[in-house]
Amino acid sequence: MNYKQAGVDISRAEDALARIRDRVRATKRPEVLGDIGAFGGLFRLTGTDTVLVATTDGVGTKLELARLLDRHEGAGTDLVHHCVNDALAMGAEPLFFLDYFSTSRLDPEIFSRVVGAMADACRVHGCALLGGETAEMPGMYAPGAYDLAGFLVGGVARDRILDPASVREGDVLIGLPSNGLHTNGYSLARAIVSKRARIEERDDRAALDAPRPELRGGTLGDALLATHRCYLDEVRALRAAATVRSIAHLTGGGWEGNLPRALPADFGAVVDRDSWVVPPLFRMLAEWGQVADAEAFDTWNMGIGLVVVIAAGDERAALHALPDAIRIGSVERPRPDAPRVRWARTR
Amino acid sequence: MNYKQAGVDISRAEDALARIRDRVRATKRPEVLGDIGAFGGLFRLTGTDTVLVATTDGVGTKLELARLLDRHEGAGTDLVHHCVNDALAMGAEPLFFLDYFSTSRLDPEIFSRVVGAMADACRVHGCALLGGETAEMPGMYAPGAYDLAGFLVGGVARDRILDPASVREGDVLIGLPSNGLHTNGYSLARAIVSKRARIEERDDRAALDAPRPELRGGTLGDALLATHRCYLDEVRALRAAATVRSIAHLTGGGWEGNLPRALPADFGAVVDRDSWVVPPLFRMLAEWGQVADAEAFDTWNMGIGLVVVIAAGDERAALHALPDAIRIGSVERPRPDAPRVRWARTR
Repeated sequence: MNYKQAGVDISRAEDALARIRDRVRATKRPEVLGDIGAFGGLFRLTGTDTVLVATTDGVGTKLELARLLDRHEGAGTDLVHHCVNDALAMGAEPLFFLDYFSTSRLDPEIFSRVVGAMADACRVHGCALLGGETAEMPGMYAPGAYDLAGFLVGGVARDRILDPASVREGDVLIGLPSNGLHTNGYSLARAIVSKRARIEERDDRAALDAPRPELRGGTLGDALLATHRCYLDEVRALRAAATVRSIAHLTGGGWEGNLPRALPADFGAVVDRDSWVVPPLFRMLAEWGQVADAEAFDTWNMGIGLVVVIAAGDERAALHALPDAIRIGSVERPRPDAPRVRWARTR
Repeated sequence: MNYKQAGVDISRAEDALARIRDRVRATKRPEVLGDIGAFGGLFRLTGTDTVLVATTDGVGTKLELARLLDRHEGAGTDLVHHCVNDALAMGAEPLFFLDYFSTSRLDPEIFSRVVGAMADACRVHGCALLGGETAEMPGMYAPGAYDLAGFLVGGVARDRILDPASVREGDVLIGLPSNGLHTNGYSLARAIVSKRARIEERDDRAALDAPRPELRGGTLGDALLATHRCYLDEVRALRAAATVRSIAHLTGGGWEGNLPRALPADFGAVVDRDSWVVPPLFRMLAEWGQVADAEAFDTWNMGIGLVVVIAAGDERAALHALPDAIRIGSVERPRPDAPRVRWARTR
């Protein structure tokens, strides 16, 4: 199985964006720094050294799982963490957040669980929940379904912006473990779960609730709904200990879709696939769905949620600062026409 | 008919917000000015006199009409204008915008029409389109359906913030005409159109496309899809000519739901219902749906999209600056337990 068969075709999104790129570029103001395609947009406010970093995200069809298992709080937390990590990838600390909650018939109890969890996540990370929009749109969504969007603005001193252009050949890639799929690749994961449930002759819900030996007796539901990990404290610690050049947040598009975003256009990365153990959840999904290796790494984070590019000489300091960080590879010049991420095996 | 029967119950939204208010308040940072309930959230960035104003909106089920009539561009323009007007209501000028586009199966052509129109509207109003999220969520939406959210950050010098607390008894209310329903009350309008179509023994599409004598031969579809008017130039002109105290953008909740947001808690407004002519579209919808007068004014803008509160002595200057502005009423102390908006008739 692959992501496209599950209904998500990244080439359609690329085509769509290509069609409007010039019209988006025409909106550029002098305060805008950088170009389209970064993890957040940069806006330098006149009269201050602070650059604003703006980012927007959704939770995707992880929402459908949260609904099926009646675990709505996680969706709110996931959304805030996703946005915070995108801002972090630009070097910024979160300032404020706004949410959009859209449904056919508002259920105040569900709403308060979702948006209440967003507020709590904002509070924990020192981010103001500055506003929101609650849309009741009869007929737009299936009963009980809702969609969420989050918008976050962070701030960073101009000389603290993480700029992929600063990356040098030989820089080291530090990986920070993920908690699971985070908020990407759920349409494929859900299609695989449905297929497996049919083989096991039970419904999706029962398949999600069954203890799995591969997950040390945990359930698929728990593993799939694990919270998108927020890397705010880790990035603060890394920046205090080492020269951080750039950061890739591994979200939609997996490794090839995100790691190159943290590199100069003519650089690639070599990543040692044996430097970390792909968690059982990913291995189960890939096996059940007969997902090709390249497809899995282009869809899911495979156990690494954030890749931090640091100066080669700072490797020891970085690994010392963060006990669960792993050296996963380094920056190199890519071969022409090859993918930007080259996989290596050491074992 | 009423809005609740059409599936939108504002009391549910109020209940939902009440449940999370304390948790939202707990996210407050020292830079946050004001409280929940304004047209935009205020965030004072350290080290600068500029206050950021953040707002988020959707287009509601006007999207369904745009889809039915294959006129998607309007939805993008509407969203930007809605957000710009909310920022204006706080006194801010737009700085940057982000969009969220969510659908089951991305159609690059539709996407580029919607988001391209957003980019164009941003450019026209000097606002950078700084980022966006395109979500493909199989199974979440009906075929061809999509949802949109917009997020805008504006800026205002601290001493230029429009603060309802500055409003005084006797201040004058200036109304600026709307282009139609703008982006609110469409679920009720669509229910009325469907009912009317059944009476006329045709489908919704035919009812929307038929020329209507009441609309001077125009169609309901054109009238309902008229663009949400952007008041940026008008507010600039008004502020140059007069002391503007506060602004109400008449969106979801109509008059009683929005005009009080521009007034101190112990003040009300008296509005002369004969000071402007309610446009034929609103009269047709109210008649066809047998919508009670109070319900119509609590759901739709009824022909006035923006209400500007100005110092009484500046009335002539304000009306001179904007030829299509109308004096519609004034600020007064309300009677206890009465609605904050009191209707008067002069003719």
